[in-house]
Amino acid sequence: MIVLVINAGSSSVKLTCFDSEGFRVLAKGLVERVGQDGTTLHLWASGQATLCRPIQVTDIRRAVELLLARLVDPEEGVLSSLAQIGAVGHRVVHGGDSVTQPVLLNENTTNIIRRWSALAPLHNPHGLAGIEAAELSLPHAVHVVVFDTAFHAKMPPVAYLYPLPRELYERDKIRRYGFHGTSHQYVYLQALEHLPGPPESRRVVTCHLGNGCSMAAITGGRSLDTSMGFTPLEGLMMGTRCGDLDPAIIVYLQERHGITPAQVNDLLNKQSGLAALSGVASGDLRDIVEAMDQGDHHALQALQIFAYRIKKYLGSYAAVLGGLDAVVFTAGIGENSPLIRRLACQGLEFLGIDLDDSLNDAPGKGLREIQAPGAAVKLLVIPTDEELAIAQQTVHLIQPNLNAAGRYAWLTAQ
Amino acid sequence: MIVLVINAGSSSVKLTCFDSEGFRVLAKGLVERVGQDGTTLHLWASGQATLCRPIQVTDIRRAVELLLARLVDPEEGVLSSLAQIGAVGHRVVHGGDSVTQPVLLNENTTNIIRRWSALAPLHNPHGLAGIEAAELSLPHAVHVVVFDTAFHAKMPPVAYLYPLPRELYERDKIRRYGFHGTSHQYVYLQALEHLPGPPESRRVVTCHLGNGCSMAAITGGRSLDTSMGFTPLEGLMMGTRCGDLDPAIIVYLQERHGITPAQVNDLLNKQSGLAALSGVASGDLRDIVEAMDQGDHHALQALQIFAYRIKKYLGSYAAVLGGLDAVVFTAGIGENSPLIRRLACQGLEFLGIDLDDSLNDAPGKGLREIQAPGAAVKLLVIPTDEELAIAQQTVHLIQPNLNAAGRYAWLTAQ
Repeated sequence: MIVLVINAGSSSVKLTCFDSEGFRVLAKGLVERVGQDGTTLHLWASGQATLCRPIQVTDIRRAVELLLARLVDPEEGVLSSLAQIGAVGHRVVHGGDSVTQPVLLNENTTNIIRRWSALAPLHNPHGLAGIEAAELSLPHAVHVVVFDTAFHAKMPPVAYLYPLPRELYERDKIRRYGFHGTSHQYVYLQALEHLPGPPESRRVVTCHLGNGCSMAAITGGRSLDTSMGFTPLEGLMMGTRCGDLDPAIIVYLQERHGITPAQVNDLLNKQSGLAALSGVASGDLRDIVEAMDQGDHHALQALQIFAYRIKKYLGSYAAVLGGLDAVVFTAGIGENSPLIRRLACQGLEFLGIDLDDSLNDAPGKGLREIQAPGAAVKLLVIPTDEELAIAQQTVHLIQPNLNAAGRYAWLTAQ
Repeated sequence: MIVLVINAGSSSVKLTCFDSEGFRVLAKGLVERVGQDGTTLHLWASGQATLCRPIQVTDIRRAVELLLARLVDPEEGVLSSLAQIGAVGHRVVHGGDSVTQPVLLNENTTNIIRRWSALAPLHNPHGLAGIEAAELSLPHAVHVVVFDTAFHAKMPPVAYLYPLPRELYERDKIRRYGFHGTSHQYVYLQALEHLPGPPESRRVVTCHLGNGCSMAAITGGRSLDTSMGFTPLEGLMMGTRCGDLDPAIIVYLQERHGITPAQVNDLLNKQSGLAALSGVASGDLRDIVEAMDQGDHHALQALQIFAYRIKKYLGSYAAVLGGLDAVVFTAGIGENSPLIRRLACQGLEFLGIDLDDSLNDAPGKGLREIQAPGAAVKLLVIPTDEELAIAQQTVHLIQPNLNAAGRYAWLTAQ
């Protein structure tokens, strides 16, 4: 059986085909810049060169249809028939506070996606468009929805309630939800296999440092706290997002400069973070490291602040967990920046964190341990793979006895 | 010589007279509810009953004049002459980013107070009014200004810069300032006298938990980070203030409910925190503990969240300091709530924090150690005394060789 994973965003759609036995990637398709200039289709299959070509597509629904058609195109296609696809895992950002696991697609599920669209207006509607297109094209497949918020939905109230009037929680649903849940869960489960002692009591902090950045405090299969909150703005400093901020700054800026809520949104989400503090017109860490290497003081300072804020969360989440057994670094920056890992771990020997500089600096792929010999806390670099995680969870939901998805069975039992 | 400390706020003025040798309180005066119904004057002198009487005063300047006149009133007064007052220490909230110590009053100082009034509009102007009135009534005394921000002004940039466009820092002065500086510094210096080892390397986290709440990470005489930020809204949950919050919540509320910046200010500063989450119409911890004792679930939850957020900062600041030697609890809640101290310390044994329940629960006055025997981290309850701290710093500035202000000499030398 082939498992297809669909990740439909506001301007791109990504399809990934896995075989359900070994979870090998068989084919991938991508349409990017949907509805913009330069819309492009990419198609790749195991053992073949990637096909890239400009196309005309203006909406997500049509992009999914087109990608599926191309996957089985007699001349260029990579699958012989869509009937090979037995299951589809859909990534959807916001599942609210009640969905804690992957769910089968049905009317109830689409209602959940619609209900939480108000809190993820740039994401949930596109996810739903992708789902509807895929259901029409793949009527015989089992469709499963994996929500980005699900892993955090079991957080305790001390972590998810804000000190605001209760009606804002009860009526407006304002609480911490957290995001990147699939990634945090995936690298946590990977990490467990490298930790001695009973898995259910291991205390792990996961650092997803990519375009967006978040951390989570995890034990017993459960996310106890996470740095992103009501929205993906809170928490760590990011490429172009500010993260934690004195909320009174917003009111001050509005009263002083008369900027609108929409402008505040733009300022805090798109004109802040690494890009803003470094002065380098980019939120990409590599550009900022390059500027630092050329002696740019602001670039250096931006990187120091980025790492300092990770370090503060490491301490904070150690306190939440009552100590640490492992710290996991993942996603673009987490996997590829020895500098950030080193700065974030500096001075945390009292927590049992002891980075080995040569292991940290050594290039590598796959899961790596980078702590010094004998260190109490394992420091792990683990490549995240949301598509794989969604494929595995999809298979686990519909064939729970399959061995390949075993670690999700453990999770469900917690 | 008598040292007078003046604390002039938006609706009250407090005077405290100390003798400059032993810093004994000789007399106190207070005018409260200035400009409101029920304006009252209180006058107290060592060994005498307190005098309370309604008065008519509508501005701070006049309240200072009146209090000084009453202090030396032939019939009711407590001093024989204002000429006995050799020095005056004025409390002012905001001194910006350049003033790190108490300063003599001169034109430059009043300019600083005026310049930072934009960031403390409810405080600095009243402080200045008090200063001007006192200068006229006490022309022969030396006047010193002690800023609430001063102790935090040596924070490193990693702690004080927000990940926002640099012009917001450079042009609008948006950065972390921190508040309660006089209190954090005072209890830190007290704590040092109870810690073994070289004072300059002791790592202390101070928790000022009162009406407003803030924490600071202190070592080498320097505040390295503190939880209040650009304003006193950021950081810990407080009686009626929310503390840390996803900044996007503000934009969401504005777009959804059309509330104005002023309403946001009111919501986050006056209708949030313990009062809001508990549902008890009070931000006073004692009322909330009482409700909890009567089985109110929301009150219990509010207290748990209050303590949980202290615990997260304890971990975070341990990371900033590279470990802990002491935690200090001070101010109303810090000094008087064994419950909050216990909840905040729970599960932090990995940091060397080990609270002794019976010491914690025992009633007491003055400095107390409440850690278990042999615990690595000292847990100290230290009554704060901002007036005494201001008096001592005032004397130290004008008579630096006086032994009584010795610990401030140590601080200055760091």
